[in-house]
Amino acid sequence: MPTSRGFEEMWRDLAPVGRSAVSGGYFRQPWSSAEGELRAWFAAECERRGLTVETDGIGNQVAWWEPDPLVEEGAPRPSRDPGVLAGSHLDSVLDGGAYDGPLGVVSALAAIDVLRDRGFAPSRPLGIGVFVEEEGSRFGRACLGSRLVTGATTWEQARELRDRDGVFLADAVVDAGLDPSAGLLSLDRVGTFVELHVEQGRDLVDRDVAVGLASEIWPHGRWRFDFAGQANHAGTTRMEDRHDPMLTYAMTALAANKQARLAGQRATFGRVAVEPNGTNAVPSLVTAWLDARASSDGALAELVASIERQAEDRAGRDGTTLTLTAESVSGSVAFDADLAARLAGLHGWPVIPTQAGHDAGILSDAGIPTAMVFVRNPTGVSHSPDEHAETADCLAGVEALADVLAELTSAPS
Amino acid sequence: MPTSRGFEEMWRDLAPVGRSAVSGGYFRQPWSSAEGELRAWFAAECERRGLTVETDGIGNQVAWWEPDPLVEEGAPRPSRDPGVLAGSHLDSVLDGGAYDGPLGVVSALAAIDVLRDRGFAPSRPLGIGVFVEEEGSRFGRACLGSRLVTGATTWEQARELRDRDGVFLADAVVDAGLDPSAGLLSLDRVGTFVELHVEQGRDLVDRDVAVGLASEIWPHGRWRFDFAGQANHAGTTRMEDRHDPMLTYAMTALAANKQARLAGQRATFGRVAVEPNGTNAVPSLVTAWLDARASSDGALAELVASIERQAEDRAGRDGTTLTLTAESVSGSVAFDADLAARLAGLHGWPVIPTQAGHDAGILSDAGIPTAMVFVRNPTGVSHSPDEHAETADCLAGVEALADVLAELTSAPS
Repeated sequence: MPTSRGFEEMWRDLAPVGRSAVSGGYFRQPWSSAEGELRAWFAAECERRGLTVETDGIGNQVAWWEPDPLVEEGAPRPSRDPGVLAGSHLDSVLDGGAYDGPLGVVSALAAIDVLRDRGFAPSRPLGIGVFVEEEGSRFGRACLGSRLVTGATTWEQARELRDRDGVFLADAVVDAGLDPSAGLLSLDRVGTFVELHVEQGRDLVDRDVAVGLASEIWPHGRWRFDFAGQANHAGTTRMEDRHDPMLTYAMTALAANKQARLAGQRATFGRVAVEPNGTNAVPSLVTAWLDARASSDGALAELVASIERQAEDRAGRDGTTLTLTAESVSGSVAFDADLAARLAGLHGWPVIPTQAGHDAGILSDAGIPTAMVFVRNPTGVSHSPDEHAETADCLAGVEALADVLAELTSAPS
Repeated sequence: MPTSRGFEEMWRDLAPVGRSAVSGGYFRQPWSSAEGELRAWFAAECERRGLTVETDGIGNQVAWWEPDPLVEEGAPRPSRDPGVLAGSHLDSVLDGGAYDGPLGVVSALAAIDVLRDRGFAPSRPLGIGVFVEEEGSRFGRACLGSRLVTGATTWEQARELRDRDGVFLADAVVDAGLDPSAGLLSLDRVGTFVELHVEQGRDLVDRDVAVGLASEIWPHGRWRFDFAGQANHAGTTRMEDRHDPMLTYAMTALAANKQARLAGQRATFGRVAVEPNGTNAVPSLVTAWLDARASSDGALAELVASIERQAEDRAGRDGTTLTLTAESVSGSVAFDADLAARLAGLHGWPVIPTQAGHDAGILSDAGIPTAMVFVRNPTGVSHSPDEHAETADCLAGVEALADVLAELTSAPS
C-alpha cells in the first residue's frame, strides 16, 4: 500500500460515494451503506499513513499521530501532552454537496502528508477525527455525534429518536454493524480542536482571499410548526366553509421570509409534511419546520416570536390552530478569540462569523479551545449539489491547515 | 347463510375495514389488503342474495339480478333487454370517511332486499357494481376503474402509472391477486346507471330534505405545479441571494384560495412534495397539486389561468421557475335531464349540482343515461374522518334508491 494519496486523488476516490445519478447531489445519510463506505475509506487512508483508527460504538472515528518519544524504549509511548484534533464529518444533507464535511477530513489527511513532506514532527499528539450525523438529516438533531461525545446529549435521550421511516436511532446504529454498548469516543486527549470547512457564504469571495478563520457561530435552531385544520372535500366544500391549514402555513412561510429579510437574519421553511396529502382533500394537518438564525440570542428569540405571532393571527382567521415546538436551539458560539487571533496572524487571514452550526461549535461549547478554517466558496452555495470550491483554494486550505497544525503541535505544553 | 343482512348490519360489518386507530379515518387504497377484504365482502353479500359476482381483471365487480324468464326452459336465460346498474365504489381517499363510496354499494344491496320484500320482480336485469380506484388516491387518476371500462383511458396508458412508492399500476394489480389479462368488465348490458352517494356539501341541509337527484357535475381537474429553485444552506445563504421555490408555492397557494373565493369557484392545494425536504436546506423543488373546479368549462380555464399568471409573476420575483402540467381535466357533465326529471317526480326530490367527480360522470360521458341520488350530509364534510350521514337519512336513501330502481326496471323496453 502506498503511504499516501494526494488531495486530488482522495477527492476523486470519494466522488462516486452516495452520489445521485439524477441530481449529482449526495445522499450520505448516517448509518447508511454510503456512510459505511466512507468510514471504511477513512480507516484505510489513516492506515496508509501508519495511523490506527479507533471507531466508537456509534461510528465516530479518530486516529492519532503520536509524537516520537523523547527516549526510545521499545514501543512508542503516547504523549501525556494535550493533543490537537483536526476533523469534520463525512455525512451530507439530503441531496447535498461534496464539500460540506468531507473537505475538512480530506484536508486533514492531506495536511499530515504536507507536514511529513516538510520533515515536521509534532511535539504533541495530532489527531484526525470524523463525527457522525453532523447534518441531522436523518434523526433531526444536528451535530449528534459530537453532542454525544461531549455529553451535550446523552445516549438515553438519543437512542429513541426516529428517522422518517420510524426506525429508532439505536436500531439504525446496530444495523450499520456498530455496537453502542462499546461506548463513545473520549475527548480526554483533545486540548485543541480545529475544523476546516468550505465557506457557506461569500464573505471570502467579497474579501478576495482563499482562506479565513471563524470568529463565531450565530445562534440558531429548529422549530416545528403544527398547523391543524379540518380535512374536507376539495371540490364540494365552499371556500368560506374551510379550515385549511395549508393557507396558514403558506402565509407563515412568506411572513418568515419577509421578517428575516427585513432584519438581516435567516428564516427558512425547507421541510413540510402534509396529512392526508391527497390532491382532492383539504388537509387536516400541515407540519413545517422553521430553521432560524440570527446575530444574537435576543434577535433570534425576537425573530421566532414575530413569526409565531403572525402565524397565530392567520390561524385565527383560517379557523386553524398552531402548536409550536422548539426541537433544538443552539445559543451563539464564540470561538477562542486569542486562538483565532494567533492563527490568523500566521498569514494575515481574515476572521469572519458564520451562520452555520458545526461540530466545532459543540466542542467549543464543551470548553475545548476551538478554531475553524474556512475555504472560499465561489458562489456561496451549500447544502446543494451545486456546492463548490476551486481545487487551488482547496490546496491553499490544506497548506493553511498544515501551518495551523504545525503551529499548534510544535511546542510542548 | 341467511339470505340477507340489513343496511345497519352491513354498515357495522364494514366499519373496521381499513380504519386508522389514530384518526378514525379510512385508508382503503386500491389493491391494498383493505380493499381486497372489501371485494370479498361484496362478493359474499351478493352471494347471500343469490347473485353471482363477476370480478374483472383489475377488480371492478358486478352482480346481476336476472329477470325471471317469461318461459321457463331449464337454466334461467339472461334477458336481452338493457339492464339497470346501481353502484359506486369501496375505496377511500387517504384518511377518508366511511360514506363516500360504500354508502352507494351498501344501499344498492339493501335496495334489492327492499324490492324483494315488496314482492317486486324486475322486468329487466338489475345489477350492482363496484368500480376500483374512484378516488385516484394511489395512482393519481380519479375514476380509473370506470375510465378503463368505458375506454376513456386505455390499459396501455394506465399500466405504467406509479404510486408514491414507485410501484407500477400493472404490478399492484397482480400483487392484489388479479389478472389484468382477464380483461375488463363489459358495459354492454348497462342501459342506465344509477349511483347513490352521500352529499359532499350542504345543499340538502339548506333545503331540509334527506334525498336529492343530481343535475350536473362541475368541470374539474388536477394540475401539477413544479416550482424549481436552487437548493442552498438555510443558515448561511443571505435572504436576498436565494431562489426559494417554497415562497413561490406559498404565494400561489394563497392566490389560488383568494381567486376561487372571489369567483365562487374551488381551488385547493392539498398535496405537496418538497426536495430535498431538509430543515436546514432551501428547497430545490416544490411540487404541489392544484385541485380546481368551476361552474363552467370557461370559468375553470379562467381560474387556472389566473392562478398560473400569479404564480409566474411571483416566480419571476423569486428567481424560480414554474412548470405546469394538467394531469387530468374533466369537462362538465350534464346528467340525463329527462331521466332526472322523471325520477325527481316520483317524490318531488330536488335536482342539484355537485362539484365532485364520480364514476357516474364517466359513464354519463360514455353515453349511458345516468342518474345520481344524493343523501343528506348534516355538516357537508367529506374526504375526512368526520364525514357523516344520519342513519335515518341513509335508510331514506335506500327506500329512494329502491323506488328509482323499481321505476327503471318495472317496464320492458
